[in-house]
Amino acid sequence: MQDEQAIRDTIAAWIRATAAGDIAELTTLMTDDAVFLTPGQSPMRRDDFMAQFLAAVEHVRIEASSEVQEIEIAGDWAYCWNRLDVKATPRAGGAPQHRAGYTLTIFRRDGGAWRLARDANLLA
Amino acid sequence: MQDEQAIRDTIAAWIRATAAGDIAELTTLMTDDAVFLTPGQSPMRRDDFMAQFLAAVEHVRIEASSEVQEIEIAGDWAYCWNRLDVKATPRAGGAPQHRAGYTLTIFRRDGGAWRLARDANLLA
Repeated sequence: MQDEQAIRDTIAAWIRATAAGDIAELTTLMTDDAVFLTPGQSPMRRDDFMAQFLAAVEHVRIEASSEVQEIEIAGDWAYCWNRLDVKATPRAGGAPQHRAGYTLTIFRRDGGAWRLARDANLLA
Repeated sequence: MQDEQAIRDTIAAWIRATAAGDIAELTTLMTDDAVFLTPGQSPMRRDDFMAQFLAAVEHVRIEASSEVQEIEIAGDWAYCWNRLDVKATPRAGGAPQHRAGYTLTIFRRDGGAWRLARDANLLA
């Protein structure tokens, strides 16, 4: 239960760092070799993800909420299946964009913390 | 290495069963509680997946090839990240449709076999 709570805390911290545009904090929440898979795009490594994140938060404020569907832990690895709702509000004003869908994420116990290692983001 | 080979064998058997439209064989390759996540769709359980598969193979022959990017095993669980190319050829004739993309799959050791348990399919 302690590990499961730690993973939930990582997810909550991820959502807070995303809303704050806090890239330094996001870096601490993922492994060095993190991989991000999204529909119709090439896999992104950490640096690709960061570049895309920085480009996005320049223009929009991203508020997300997640509903954990399942967490399963096996030693230093875990997977989590999540429902995610994302609202992106243009900083210049205008109507926010909503997206919703599911994620399947692999977390790794890494230096005492649970960090995001592999992420499949199915939001349409 | 033996477990990794067993997972590769499950993937190969999955592709063969898909090409053959062999739903009985597919059933043996997934866990009872399997979940399938795809972009823009609700999560599918085993029965939903089967119904969709049967509806598809009535109209098309599905040939796929996969290129394993990574397999990581932790006890009775494993994840696998894959590149998948899929060709769907109409049985009534006509040009085949190609799709390519990535999958992130959780496998579980289940009754001595490695079966697909959770699947995020990012093919556009």
